[in-house]
Amino acid sequence: MVNQAIAAIPYPAQPSNLYEPISYHMALGGKRIRPVLTLMACDAMGGTPDDAIDAAVGLEMFHNFTLLHDDVMDNADVRRGKPTVHRRWDDNTAILSGDTMLTIATQYVARCCSWPVMELFNKTAIEIYEGQQWDMDYECRTDVTEAEYINMIRLKTSVLLGCALKTGALIADADDKQADLLYQAGVNMGLAFQLRDDVLDVWGDAKTFGKEIGGDIMQNKKTFLLINAMLLAQGDDASELQHWLNDTGASRNEKVAAVTAMYERMGVRQLAERAIAHYNDLAVAAFTQAKMSDDDRDAFISLSNRLAGRNY
Amino acid sequence: MVNQAIAAIPYPAQPSNLYEPISYHMALGGKRIRPVLTLMACDAMGGTPDDAIDAAVGLEMFHNFTLLHDDVMDNADVRRGKPTVHRRWDDNTAILSGDTMLTIATQYVARCCSWPVMELFNKTAIEIYEGQQWDMDYECRTDVTEAEYINMIRLKTSVLLGCALKTGALIADADDKQADLLYQAGVNMGLAFQLRDDVLDVWGDAKTFGKEIGGDIMQNKKTFLLINAMLLAQGDDASELQHWLNDTGASRNEKVAAVTAMYERMGVRQLAERAIAHYNDLAVAAFTQAKMSDDDRDAFISLSNRLAGRNY
Repeated sequence: MVNQAIAAIPYPAQPSNLYEPISYHMALGGKRIRPVLTLMACDAMGGTPDDAIDAAVGLEMFHNFTLLHDDVMDNADVRRGKPTVHRRWDDNTAILSGDTMLTIATQYVARCCSWPVMELFNKTAIEIYEGQQWDMDYECRTDVTEAEYINMIRLKTSVLLGCALKTGALIADADDKQADLLYQAGVNMGLAFQLRDDVLDVWGDAKTFGKEIGGDIMQNKKTFLLINAMLLAQGDDASELQHWLNDTGASRNEKVAAVTAMYERMGVRQLAERAIAHYNDLAVAAFTQAKMSDDDRDAFISLSNRLAGRNY
Repeated sequence: MVNQAIAAIPYPAQPSNLYEPISYHMALGGKRIRPVLTLMACDAMGGTPDDAIDAAVGLEMFHNFTLLHDDVMDNADVRRGKPTVHRRWDDNTAILSGDTMLTIATQYVARCCSWPVMELFNKTAIEIYEGQQWDMDYECRTDVTEAEYINMIRLKTSVLLGCALKTGALIADADDKQADLLYQAGVNMGLAFQLRDDVLDVWGDAKTFGKEIGGDIMQNKKTFLLINAMLLAQGDDASELQHWLNDTGASRNEKVAAVTAMYERMGVRQLAERAIAHYNDLAVAAFTQAKMSDDDRDAFISLSNRLAGRNY
């Protein structure tokens, strides 16, 4: 249903340099988790998924807008196995087509004619920009704590999953309590989701994961893994880690293999797996508390488990 | 009233790298035409300007968002006599703070709780991106017509003035006829406004205009002046103009003086002045047709005349 609705978005033919990058990016695929969560939540709360499809498409369009701009900011070459928009076209195209996607997203979300949904959408968007800013700020700091990191990914990634679920609930006219439970479930699913991303960037398979392994290590990205490694490393480990962080000319294979081995030796992979399980538990608990049919609950819980344990 | 409301926008303290550039840019000043038009239209249509102040602030925030991103795309150094955000900070800051401004703008516009206003705002935003895309497309073309140029500036600049007036009218509960007359007045004011900008970029005074004179000439920007000069130039004039367009290493003083002299000799300044007068006439005609008090009408007409004839 989501893919059909996305394929049916009527882009104007002109100016083609504005709209072609948008339809290119929207057709790259991806998991479509956010719109699927909106439809599932609407359905589970007794609404009609058809009433939520426009908002669902709006949230996926918004997510794709953030990817266009993030890829400019990170100077990323590849997205879902294909060239990023700023690489296939140029930075200006990615900026302006991204802006257009944000407004198209707002138009789609507005179609459900619900002020609470509009307000939630705008508030969530602001939180996501704040998360992206913290992420960039943390690149220049060496003392980022795990708590700061979790708050950053909560803003940058998780609140949009919470927003997607709550949007479906609001469109189904669920009461505040139910809508908030689904929001909490989504935020915790999102935390597990992003931590899994950190793990897959080190131990994933490029074929199923869709991007090259070790990107975070090469960029010294302050992920859950690196933050904990920096905290736990003692003596020789500490100086070896520092050596790799300072070595800007290191060969990719060598650096990725060495840092990965350190992560394994120091047990930070285990820490990440435990954190993922914890946030997934919190998501499951929220789904369990919410009022819905057993079938709907099982569907949410199995989706949450699958995403937390995914290899893609 | 506008400046007070803008100064009172409550930006969060953190992340400061996200919000400081926004408050910096909003404090640069400028003519504040768009929000003033919204308040004037609301007042003239029998509404309470207080009811329109949030939407007015939203439109000014939106306008400033487009400036942040345009300055990245044009690689501009100076805005209102001060360093642009991407120059004072960096491109990534201008992109992300700009995105944030677009969502804050949407939040402010949404505060009036009018779906027609929200829809007008989103539609106008899309038109503005399309205008910016045409502007960039035209940079690589040598056969842009005057009609294409007028349509481009209608999208890029004028519809926002129309939107500002219509927003005030809608908030005052004016009927569709009145709202549309004000929209047309705004669009025509906007065309005269942008053509005046083209003229000031050549014959203005850097002190009052706020930016260096001759920027469009140095960039071979396809303005109303250059498009008509290319159309009218014959024989020696045509080859001289072509020489300056091809001369990427020309000294600023020499090229600006030579092209300005050609514009004067060929009468394109006169053409531009006549077009400005024409669009200002259309704006005045629309204000004249709209139902309002003579005092309000005089205020609009005198503002339109002043902007069309301005030196700032």
